[in-house]
Amino acid sequence: MLIVQKFGGSSVANAEKIRRVAGIIADTYCEGHDVVVILSAQGDTTDDLLAKAAEINPDASKRELDVLLTTGEQISVALMAMALEKMGLPAVSLTGWQVGVHTDSDYGNARIRDIDTERIRRELDRRRIVLVTGFQGINKYDDVTTLGRGGSDTSAVAIAAVLKADKCQIYTDVEGVYTADPRKVPDAVKLDEITYDEMLELASLGAQVLHNRSVMMAQKYSLELEVLSSYVRKPGTLVKEVTKNVERMKISGIAKDNDVVRIAVVGLQDAPGVAFRVFKSLSNANIVVDIILQSFGKNATNDISFTVASSACEAAVAALEAAKESIGYDHINVDPHVSKVSIVGAGMVTSAGIATTMFEALYEANINIKMISTSEIKISVLVAEEDADSAVRAIHSKFFRR
Amino acid sequence: MLIVQKFGGSSVANAEKIRRVAGIIADTYCEGHDVVVILSAQGDTTDDLLAKAAEINPDASKRELDVLLTTGEQISVALMAMALEKMGLPAVSLTGWQVGVHTDSDYGNARIRDIDTERIRRELDRRRIVLVTGFQGINKYDDVTTLGRGGSDTSAVAIAAVLKADKCQIYTDVEGVYTADPRKVPDAVKLDEITYDEMLELASLGAQVLHNRSVMMAQKYSLELEVLSSYVRKPGTLVKEVTKNVERMKISGIAKDNDVVRIAVVGLQDAPGVAFRVFKSLSNANIVVDIILQSFGKNATNDISFTVASSACEAAVAALEAAKESIGYDHINVDPHVSKVSIVGAGMVTSAGIATTMFEALYEANINIKMISTSEIKISVLVAEEDADSAVRAIHSKFFRR
Repeated sequence: MLIVQKFGGSSVANAEKIRRVAGIIADTYCEGHDVVVILSAQGDTTDDLLAKAAEINPDASKRELDVLLTTGEQISVALMAMALEKMGLPAVSLTGWQVGVHTDSDYGNARIRDIDTERIRRELDRRRIVLVTGFQGINKYDDVTTLGRGGSDTSAVAIAAVLKADKCQIYTDVEGVYTADPRKVPDAVKLDEITYDEMLELASLGAQVLHNRSVMMAQKYSLELEVLSSYVRKPGTLVKEVTKNVERMKISGIAKDNDVVRIAVVGLQDAPGVAFRVFKSLSNANIVVDIILQSFGKNATNDISFTVASSACEAAVAALEAAKESIGYDHINVDPHVSKVSIVGAGMVTSAGIATTMFEALYEANINIKMISTSEIKISVLVAEEDADSAVRAIHSKFFRR
Repeated sequence: MLIVQKFGGSSVANAEKIRRVAGIIADTYCEGHDVVVILSAQGDTTDDLLAKAAEINPDASKRELDVLLTTGEQISVALMAMALEKMGLPAVSLTGWQVGVHTDSDYGNARIRDIDTERIRRELDRRRIVLVTGFQGINKYDDVTTLGRGGSDTSAVAIAAVLKADKCQIYTDVEGVYTADPRKVPDAVKLDEITYDEMLELASLGAQVLHNRSVMMAQKYSLELEVLSSYVRKPGTLVKEVTKNVERMKISGIAKDNDVVRIAVVGLQDAPGVAFRVFKSLSNANIVVDIILQSFGKNATNDISFTVASSACEAAVAALEAAKESIGYDHINVDPHVSKVSIVGAGMVTSAGIATTMFEALYEANINIKMISTSEIKISVLVAEEDADSAVRAIHSKFFRR
């Protein structure tokens, strides 16, 4: 079998952890498999490099930031090769440009265009363990690029896809995908399987196990992913197209996202085109809006509330203020102390009463719902930030009561 | 003019120093010149990376060590580009593989074969300041290599040579080449000019201003080098083929080398072929011998003494012991507490009495000479390590008395 394994930055943060990961890789190799390993930069390396850059130039060009940051993964692959050599195993480290990970030129957030397989194949043919830098590639100018957030996951999935790997294992510091954050919800259950769509919803809701880009790419290439622990040797969670337990387990997970702000535009005219003008001004400023709620205000006016990521709040308010005359409203209200709590499940669409059960759980826990949003496989509610953890626990025990 | 500038690791050790160097580069660029800058890794970066490697595998392969170490210069060029961007200047960083510094495959000590000029020329044509990683290249397999000690100087000279640069400036933490180590000899004089040959002798004698490889390469391409300070803005020392002051100043410098061990092979037969067998056994073990002295021992035997670099001592003794039967000697004597003190000068060959003056200085200082070696432009003496500094001062004041 050809197995692609990816280890994140915390899994290779120091010599001891590198040795532990080398053990996992060695076991896989010694079972007779071909092994390609994708590594992130060690622990805080990326942050340290960014701090160095910020000290010299807080507005450094993205091209040079990428030149700087790509050193992080290069250090990781070299050290891992040394750890494997120490075990007497043949290993070779390769960077993004050596492999030929071709990307566009969007420095800092590049997209992979294609990946050469020749060099990796040649090394595998020589029975070497191939260690590839995650997160990075080169553009058509032969300049280095980075893939942005979740880049190493994306590298791993893309390389597994072009190599037509039999397995793509994403090693993390959790044991798999859980029905809720196990640090917050003691009776959270590890899922054996989850669909791509469910995983996408959970990832976008802040579950932080797999980055969306990598899940979407795996779905596109029908590549089965396994999320498992670098620390505990047991099966993790398979991410795949169809899972066996869709019917049995109606929802597959609960996620919480604190990185959200509610903005209310108060005192809008009750006339056609008002909502359009509100959201047009936001989309013109490239702001992604999440949950939307329209409600009646005083004196025949309307209020429109919506949520955006915290980082977009300032720009959203600025865009609305700039368009105040053309939109016509009384004032803007910003509430940063909110959290989005969501349940996700491919089985939801065929099951009645899921939403009801969720709202019942919140009612019993005396938690006020500020906004609601639903999709085919997701129901999200906005609650006060201070209520978020107890909301997750209440919903979890309602659905996963054993 | 096209000016190549090289800055060592201590000159770019932190943000403040990077800004200072950026100022030097900016001034050169703003005078209207094309500027190519070669940088070493920051301060202790290389040592830190080596420590990381040693923790994981003290016998790491040289290929992987090179992958690891080349990140150091990559960080330097990215940070310098950011510093120049901050000043509003156009800069672009390039690694050894991006430039196309082609080397052989002797990882850790690679030799440059040829250098592509196309990418650098293209960037210069766009009026960009080009920042190139020193110390590194790629071999025919597209694997990264490092050039070994003094590699960044060599990179700078080689790049200046292929670009036919008008100037090649080597910035260091001293103001130029001195007649003696200014930290040890208070009245040491900075030289305006020095020949390649003199510089080579001084470098090999431990003057540590320029590495021999870079001087030899400059000589080969008749490239004039300027050694000057990163901290003080004034002219340094020109290293060139013929200097004006050869006749005036008979010797151009005094150097001390503590990294030397004297080995004596005692009780050799007084027969033909004995010296040959001694040095054959050493050259077979790749040991470079420096000063050689043959003297009469007791009972019609001979003693042969020679010096080697401290690092070669163990191997030299082992080689001699392995060949003890075929050579035929009584015992080996090792004296590590010796220093080599040398005077260098292209004018020496045309001046009588230089050696006499040197020996007179040592006699007056009551310093015992253990061995003597001379060449056309150099006279070296071996003295006790404890006498070395006063030997340098005594010789210096004899020659450079004002």
